[in-house]
Amino acid sequence: MTKVAILGGSGYTAVELIKILLRHPDIEIVAVTSRQEGTPSLADLHPSLTGRIDLRCELFDADRLVARGVECAFGCLPHGVSMHTLPALLRRGVRVIDLSADYRLRDPNVYAQWYGESHEDLAHLTQAVYGLPELYGDEIRDAQLVANPGCYPQPAILGLAPLVAGGHIDLHGIIVDSKSGVSGAGRTPKLTTHFPECNESVSAYNVGRHRHTPEIEQALGDVAGGPVEVIFTPHLIPMDRGIFTTVYAAPRRQFSEDQLLELYRAYYAHAPFVRVGKRLPATKDCWGTNFLDLTVRVVRDRIIVLGCEDNLVRGASGVAVQNFNRLYGHDERTALL
Amino acid sequence: MTKVAILGGSGYTAVELIKILLRHPDIEIVAVTSRQEGTPSLADLHPSLTGRIDLRCELFDADRLVARGVECAFGCLPHGVSMHTLPALLRRGVRVIDLSADYRLRDPNVYAQWYGESHEDLAHLTQAVYGLPELYGDEIRDAQLVANPGCYPQPAILGLAPLVAGGHIDLHGIIVDSKSGVSGAGRTPKLTTHFPECNESVSAYNVGRHRHTPEIEQALGDVAGGPVEVIFTPHLIPMDRGIFTTVYAAPRRQFSEDQLLELYRAYYAHAPFVRVGKRLPATKDCWGTNFLDLTVRVVRDRIIVLGCEDNLVRGASGVAVQNFNRLYGHDERTALL
Amino acid sequence: MTKVAILGGSGYTAVELIKILLRHPDIEIVAVTSRQEGTPSLADLHPSLTGRIDLRCELFDADRLVARGVECAFGCLPHGVSMHTLPALLRRGVRVIDLSADYRLRDPNVYAQWYGESHEDLAHLTQAVYGLPELYGDEIRDAQLVANPGCYPQPAILGLAPLVAGGHIDLHGIIVDSKSGVSGAGRTPKLTTHFPECNESVSAYNVGRHRHTPEIEQALGDVAGGPVEVIFTPHLIPMDRGIFTTVYAAPRRQFSEDQLLELYRAYYAHAPFVRVGKRLPATKDCWGTNFLDLTVRVVRDRIIVLGCEDNLVRGASGVAVQNFNRLYGHDERTALL
Amino acid sequence: MTKVAILGGSGYTAVELIKILLRHPDIEIVAVTSRQEGTPSLADLHPSLTGRIDLRCELFDADRLVARGVECAFGCLPHGVSMHTLPALLRRGVRVIDLSADYRLRDPNVYAQWYGESHEDLAHLTQAVYGLPELYGDEIRDAQLVANPGCYPQPAILGLAPLVAGGHIDLHGIIVDSKSGVSGAGRTPKLTTHFPECNESVSAYNVGRHRHTPEIEQALGDVAGGPVEVIFTPHLIPMDRGIFTTVYAAPRRQFSEDQLLELYRAYYAHAPFVRVGKRLPATKDCWGTNFLDLTVRVVRDRIIVLGCEDNLVRGASGVAVQNFNRLYGHDERTALL
Repeated sequence: MTKVAILGGSGYTAVELIKILLRHPDIEIVAVTSRQEGTPSLADLHPSLTGRIDLRCELFDADRLVARGVECAFGCLPHGVSMHTLPALLRRGVRVIDLSADYRLRDPNVYAQWYGESHEDLAHLTQAVYGLPELYGDEIRDAQLVANPGCYPQPAILGLAPLVAGGHIDLHGIIVDSKSGVSGAGRTPKLTTHFPECNESVSAYNVGRHRHTPEIEQALGDVAGGPVEVIFTPHLIPMDRGIFTTVYAAPRRQFSEDQLLELYRAYYAHAPFVRVGKRLPATKDCWGTNFLDLTVRVVRDRIIVLGCEDNLVRGASGVAVQNFNRLYGHDERTALL
Repeated sequence: MTKVAILGGSGYTAVELIKILLRHPDIEIVAVTSRQEGTPSLADLHPSLTGRIDLRCELFDADRLVARGVECAFGCLPHGVSMHTLPALLRRGVRVIDLSADYRLRDPNVYAQWYGESHEDLAHLTQAVYGLPELYGDEIRDAQLVANPGCYPQPAILGLAPLVAGGHIDLHGIIVDSKSGVSGAGRTPKLTTHFPECNESVSAYNVGRHRHTPEIEQALGDVAGGPVEVIFTPHLIPMDRGIFTTVYAAPRRQFSEDQLLELYRAYYAHAPFVRVGKRLPATKDCWGTNFLDLTVRVVRDRIIVLGCEDNLVRGASGVAVQNFNRLYGHDERTALL
Repeated sequence: MTKVAILGGSGYTAVELIKILLRHPDIEIVAVTSRQEGTPSLADLHPSLTGRIDLRCELFDADRLVARGVECAFGCLPHGVSMHTLPALLRRGVRVIDLSADYRLRDPNVYAQWYGESHEDLAHLTQAVYGLPELYGDEIRDAQLVANPGCYPQPAILGLAPLVAGGHIDLHGIIVDSKSGVSGAGRTPKLTTHFPECNESVSAYNVGRHRHTPEIEQALGDVAGGPVEVIFTPHLIPMDRGIFTTVYAAPRRQFSEDQLLELYRAYYAHAPFVRVGKRLPATKDCWGTNFLDLTVRVVRDRIIVLGCEDNLVRGASGVAVQNFNRLYGHDERTALL
Repeated sequence: MTKVAILGGSGYTAVELIKILLRHPDIEIVAVTSRQEGTPSLADLHPSLTGRIDLRCELFDADRLVARGVECAFGCLPHGVSMHTLPALLRRGVRVIDLSADYRLRDPNVYAQWYGESHEDLAHLTQAVYGLPELYGDEIRDAQLVANPGCYPQPAILGLAPLVAGGHIDLHGIIVDSKSGVSGAGRTPKLTTHFPECNESVSAYNVGRHRHTPEIEQALGDVAGGPVEVIFTPHLIPMDRGIFTTVYAAPRRQFSEDQLLELYRAYYAHAPFVRVGKRLPATKDCWGTNFLDLTVRVVRDRIIVLGCEDNLVRGASGVAVQNFNRLYGHDERTALL
């Protein structure tokens, strides 16, 4: 039984994580921290947790968490806050799975460029492992700090990895057109996520400027062994959750769809959460799960990869538990089916 | 051609009103006021107005409005603000159709009790006419100040008026169960109207405490010639607009559905926007229109009235234009079909 | 390990049931039957099951099911079909949890009146136990045939039971106003459930004629020890799932809200899935769970009970598993948290 | 006053068209045809039309329509049916605006290839004018038969025309990624448009095989004066209406965003329904209107054009009225603002 803490309990990734962890036979949640005033119970913050967990939020205190036996912490803090909070735990030997963006980009200059502030914890940044289990599974096993991947990057990276690994496509000018439900924008009310503004509407945002771009390029660059360049366009869709990503790539030689499906099936033969199929996927079919569904089409001279996931589970809290399972030697699927 | 001003241009009722007024052959919008910083163009505030109207918002200044020939103003201000803003115009002889709640309740004590502050413009309160054209049509014609009705009260009042007028039901214990789209909550982002909170969810709010209760009771009391008491429960529905109201009343004698339909058809024979039908209504069928649809059922010993409307048009800006048409002697339907 | 079969695998209750059963440590699904042509795999019928269960549908054959060790069957067949299919299993000693309406109404005349056909399995009808665990828990334990309750009846019955049991309200003229997501209408495409027809719309249907009415009255009649009469109005809401029910009852003496909450808490002290709270509930907070949330308000001289549930889990497949757990002596919550 | 008929009154484009035509000062709707059994009133078919038009559907009879003075007909029939129905009217001198796909593709072989049947009215096919007013405005003026454009093609064609006209991009490998509301799939219930299947979900369909592909390529080929090749991927979005299209093109030389905006503004200087702006568009902002909104971004070495429209108005019935206005010499905007 591993005692865990959740840092930052008020958002959507935290509540989703708690629901998954409550099903995990080898985990005990001993603390949830929050900067909310008072010490609200989790049921006050998230009425859906009523009757499922009986904990009050507390202020973050590294010593107290260690004293209570916390071995592993899940960071659900905003980026920028994470890199100031986690070092205290890491120095005390606690393992951390960080769901923020702070430790995902290896190059602090890239971080500064895209996040608009300089990185303040270079020591741990160099030790962090990017927590995409299908590509970095071995490194994750021994990590102290796992940088859990972003929601958009996962279908983009896993959708392209088999093509990039085989050297089958141009690594330049890859188009990643993504459609996301609104929960991806977090729980803080804004005009753009006010129901009567975004319901019954589709729009694009942060075109060419979204912070998940360098994350996609870094991981694909690792696969390629050299620079990869994507053009990434996120769109806001009137639904709670789900990301659908349509990737357009230029192949270096001709492929049939059957060849590509075979390539993908072989590449993900040992990945229980990547479902490669002939059928066009729909976000509803992976709703609430840790699955990432992929298929491939060939249209004229382009390869189109179509993938989807649940942005809160596979895109955040589910893959965090998948990472936990790797860290602690559990079956990767524990609590996730 | 009547020159009009719109006071408070940033919300949903204002943008809806502007779209209707742009179709009105006898109206010219000469000013839109707003307390927004800078003097944003209407297209900046409401991108849907791009290419349809070329006006910048301005700060409210009664003299300037009068100088520019404004004869009639539509008040789209929050309650509490209205009663401090409108007197300056009223004193200068401008006619006002006020979409706020400030002049709807004749008794200032009732206002104080439900709105939590004392009424500050008793002088004009006594002159205001409640702007429900089907019931107060004659008084509206000569009014200087029309208190445009609330969204919830209209299907409740018009759904019950034929029964109350005929003395056909108990005036006590009438149940009004309403279901409203989210635009009724206004344009200011809040957690309860944040898309991932209210989408895919139904909830009730302000049970027994909603401010539209005394408004419903006042109008029905006028019809009855004595006190009427309703139990009003509003619910929030995951859609942009539309109100569906289900009323349960105890009849004083037996009625068949056909008798009731005939009663309703006769009562609304001269009301072009009240559609009485045998068919169960759906909010979609009056979407974007000024129609209010009604039907009646008899179940066991109760009469059930089912009614619906578009909360932004019939429930606010459409009925305001219907009132304008009465004030200025136009066909009631002008710009509304 | 109990071997179970699911009869009728193509609808929403079946897929929801399979997902829950896959988490149950003491259940093995050995067969899923369907009248669909071919023998489609479950993943073909329900893409969301891809990678989670590897079974093909088969035609119903009682002998074959028994030969394969099926001890318990879940009936997900339409009403009318159930009463012709289940007897073959019941005669062979298989226990059945029937999610259809066929065995819910004890009086075959009431069945004939509301369902428009005569009951064809009177033998088993008399043995069936109504599967609402909070009220019929003891009888369920020893039943061979459990008639799983309908979706609408549960919040109505459980919302009223504490008041009815104590003799606290008039048993006549109780108003039950329900709002349901669209999945309650099943998986067969119809114009009324075609997305552009029901999205962004609220409507009422089957007013005073819905078949769940006698089911509500039968169970409350059991609690009261005499006849109970409800006026039941269902509404269709543009969301996938969830039922919100607002009940209006006339108390026989005055109650405060605190007294009522205490009454409810005491009544459901041993019901792990009924959450009584002060807070107004929202369907989203019980989404995907077996919880049924209740609160109470007093408005003027009426008691308002507000309750909600997930119509596919608590309203069908979840409570079916809760019943299974009672039948087989497991903790009631197994696979349901 | 032009007397018009609507052929095929039961679908979404017909009801939308009727609502627009009712606002047109120079049009009288004298007949609506339908193959529906009985002769339902329009209010029976479309409850939203109750109280707005008092016509019953009739069976199609060319002589009778001509006898009643019909000068112009709007065809809202399915493709395949149109080419068998319209010739009778065209031979009698009636002008026709056909909303089906039957007369859009000039080459009957292309029609046969994409629509799976041979074209049966080659005589009129050669005379038809493609009804995209911004590109074919002059030809439309004198046409007898206007082939109203499809919903998807319009933002794709108008979004690319300024680039193609100037020879600024590669005409090969252009990516058109579109997101559409569900009303685009028509009014016939199907599993894919059943609310609980498509709500809260995004999916792609007909990838590389959608019939609007050759229509896009034909119009852009006209602009280019040579072949153009697009890769077109439509997606289904859980909303009633709206199409958002994201186009990725490879420029032949470098452009700044400002240069491109200027290019677009100049190109559409005389097109009152094309709104070119700096702001990223949202389908909600053109909801219910005939506007088509466009903006442009430069990301790395690609030009991204983002455009949107209402698929039922601009994408079908609104542009049909725009075409009518051109045919009859009215201001292009009549009834459309």
